[in-house]
Amino acid sequence: MISEFYKDMTGKGSVIREFFAYSMERAKVVGSENVYNFSLGNPSVPAPENFTKAMENLLANEEPVHLHGYSPTLGIDSTRKAIADSLNRRFGMNYGPEHIFPTTGAAGALSHAMRCVVKEGDEVITFAPYFPEYIPYVNGTGATLKVVPADTSSFQINFEEFEKMMNEKVSAVLINSPNNPSGIVYTTQTIDRLAEILLRKQEEYGHEIFLISDEPYREIIFAGADAPFISAHYDNSICCYSFSKSLSIPGERLGYVAVNPKAKDAEYIVPMCGQISRFTGHNCPPSIIQLAVERVIDETSDLSIYETNKNLLYKALTDIGYKCVEPNGTFYMFPQSLIPDANEFCWRAAKEFDLILVPGDSFECKGHFRIAYCVQTEMIEKAIPLFKKLYDLYC
Amino acid sequence: MISEFYKDMTGKGSVIREFFAYSMERAKVVGSENVYNFSLGNPSVPAPENFTKAMENLLANEEPVHLHGYSPTLGIDSTRKAIADSLNRRFGMNYGPEHIFPTTGAAGALSHAMRCVVKEGDEVITFAPYFPEYIPYVNGTGATLKVVPADTSSFQINFEEFEKMMNEKVSAVLINSPNNPSGIVYTTQTIDRLAEILLRKQEEYGHEIFLISDEPYREIIFAGADAPFISAHYDNSICCYSFSKSLSIPGERLGYVAVNPKAKDAEYIVPMCGQISRFTGHNCPPSIIQLAVERVIDETSDLSIYETNKNLLYKALTDIGYKCVEPNGTFYMFPQSLIPDANEFCWRAAKEFDLILVPGDSFECKGHFRIAYCVQTEMIEKAIPLFKKLYDLYC
Repeated sequence: MISEFYKDMTGKGSVIREFFAYSMERAKVVGSENVYNFSLGNPSVPAPENFTKAMENLLANEEPVHLHGYSPTLGIDSTRKAIADSLNRRFGMNYGPEHIFPTTGAAGALSHAMRCVVKEGDEVITFAPYFPEYIPYVNGTGATLKVVPADTSSFQINFEEFEKMMNEKVSAVLINSPNNPSGIVYTTQTIDRLAEILLRKQEEYGHEIFLISDEPYREIIFAGADAPFISAHYDNSICCYSFSKSLSIPGERLGYVAVNPKAKDAEYIVPMCGQISRFTGHNCPPSIIQLAVERVIDETSDLSIYETNKNLLYKALTDIGYKCVEPNGTFYMFPQSLIPDANEFCWRAAKEFDLILVPGDSFECKGHFRIAYCVQTEMIEKAIPLFKKLYDLYC
Repeated sequence: MISEFYKDMTGKGSVIREFFAYSMERAKVVGSENVYNFSLGNPSVPAPENFTKAMENLLANEEPVHLHGYSPTLGIDSTRKAIADSLNRRFGMNYGPEHIFPTTGAAGALSHAMRCVVKEGDEVITFAPYFPEYIPYVNGTGATLKVVPADTSSFQINFEEFEKMMNEKVSAVLINSPNNPSGIVYTTQTIDRLAEILLRKQEEYGHEIFLISDEPYREIIFAGADAPFISAHYDNSICCYSFSKSLSIPGERLGYVAVNPKAKDAEYIVPMCGQISRFTGHNCPPSIIQLAVERVIDETSDLSIYETNKNLLYKALTDIGYKCVEPNGTFYMFPQSLIPDANEFCWRAAKEFDLILVPGDSFECKGHFRIAYCVQTEMIEKAIPLFKKLYDLYC
């Protein structure tokens, strides 16, 4: 018999996908240029030319049997070294290749990191607003995800609630900065305070509490942001990264786990990832992508459009009267909904103005909506009058 | 704390890897040309030129944002259609794109297929000799793998033992034909008899028993082999495929699940795979590889060398006096060890003659050893006198 557990899930589309599906239907009626789709976090700038050149060079010059051959269980050595060296250069860390495990994107990184340090019956704490896929990543280990309510005044951490929720069962804390959906970067002060609490609680509970840091937006940081490299501030930390956003290659599925060399049992964690892959059927990320990314390890796509878009949209929306904490990273913005029910608000925006937004309920933060402004700047310019009309309906 | 379960596993290297590591050490001493490494199932022929051309064309002509963008959760539509159409053309099946789920190789396919139809506490039956990674694939679902002893006279199925081991807890039967390590293809008669038993047992137990068919060697079939398309012979079947061997691209991680359109609840299984990925962190295989393979869907590498090698090696070994069931597919051969302890035998072959073989114990079939002859034909020619010397030590 087929699994009832997974079968039951197939009926339940995510809200994000419902809005996306609606936008596709509308595009057939009014033309895609007239639908303002702000619902998807897809990079809108091309991969760096050097990435394409690296792919072309590999295809032209490497023996196909070697180029397309199995990569070692723990990833291609030279790629692991390039990643470690790059992190060390940029962030003053001390990673060796043995601390790096290439994965199929951040999803693969998170699911491996979780299984390394979380077991059945444990609790994992994260902070609203958060990426809803964290739920299956955590449930896949048999643990439970607990969510600290948002500090909606700043989208930093609500430490009071966090301390209340900490308990002996917590084996990992999962954070995402720069944050999807708020667009906010955790400050050095936030990270240091978090680290101080975790150190104290480790002592109190007599076991490690790992900080799993989901960092796919690490390279999308705006002028003036205080953006600490998180693992530099807490020893028992695992950084989960993806090149999806920085190199605009989300479909090619490359990310990594970087284990803090100072973490307890650091030397075991990458070999454990290799074992975990055997159970999940994940195995290595594609060889040619590992090799091509190795060759452009310190590059990014031209990410400046995201800041341009943020500046334009943030100013326009706040001039109109929307309330929003100003993002300092990512390509998301998370303004307040004009009515308490953000779901109703987003459907009205979609149906009356073809503005496709996502209600904050999806990120366990009601009363807000997410705008993914990884789009052409021209689309934002055209959408601003519609945001004004939407505002005038309510205010 | 880190997971004791996965930590404990890191200490235990596989026997195959031990022999491989030994061969690498020896190569440093005597030169790699003097080590006869028959331990690894890596394709030795290049990917088809048209695969490389397809990759180059995609890089040259497609918009990078589109080319490297996220593929849909269930895979790229055109790739799924190309796979379905190819299977229909070649095997008279009736797959639609909705029955195809692209995965990261056969490992990804098997781990998804298992989770679709196997739940905690179930039993999965497979047949010795078998690929040892089946154990974690099955354990990952919370089920237990039960192994029917080999029929060493033919390496078809030991039906008597199979029928004894069948019971109500069995939710899936896992087969691999053409088989690693025996090199044997299950005949139409074998598959039909298996199907007849499964149908009878389904009736008796009142629930479906799925046949999960692991087919990475499907295209490597030698002259005269009776090689049925397995899913055509049993409705509740899921085919798990990989392009690793047929296109010589094992590092690029592309395979698929193909759900028999006649299977019970067939329409749910691919959408369920999409849900399963969320828990395992697997997500889609790389976009560019999906698109490139789509363009060469009916091609293979020049696989004829494997049959050339088989003919040469099989004749030589049996002329010397080794006993072996003649392979009719794959690039493996599975002769009898010259002493009962195949492990001791393989170490002696390695240490005295630099012949790197793998003991059958790794495949739960003692008294045999595996030769992976996916190597240059010249290496086989040079190794034959060593196999003769090895024989003379014992006989």
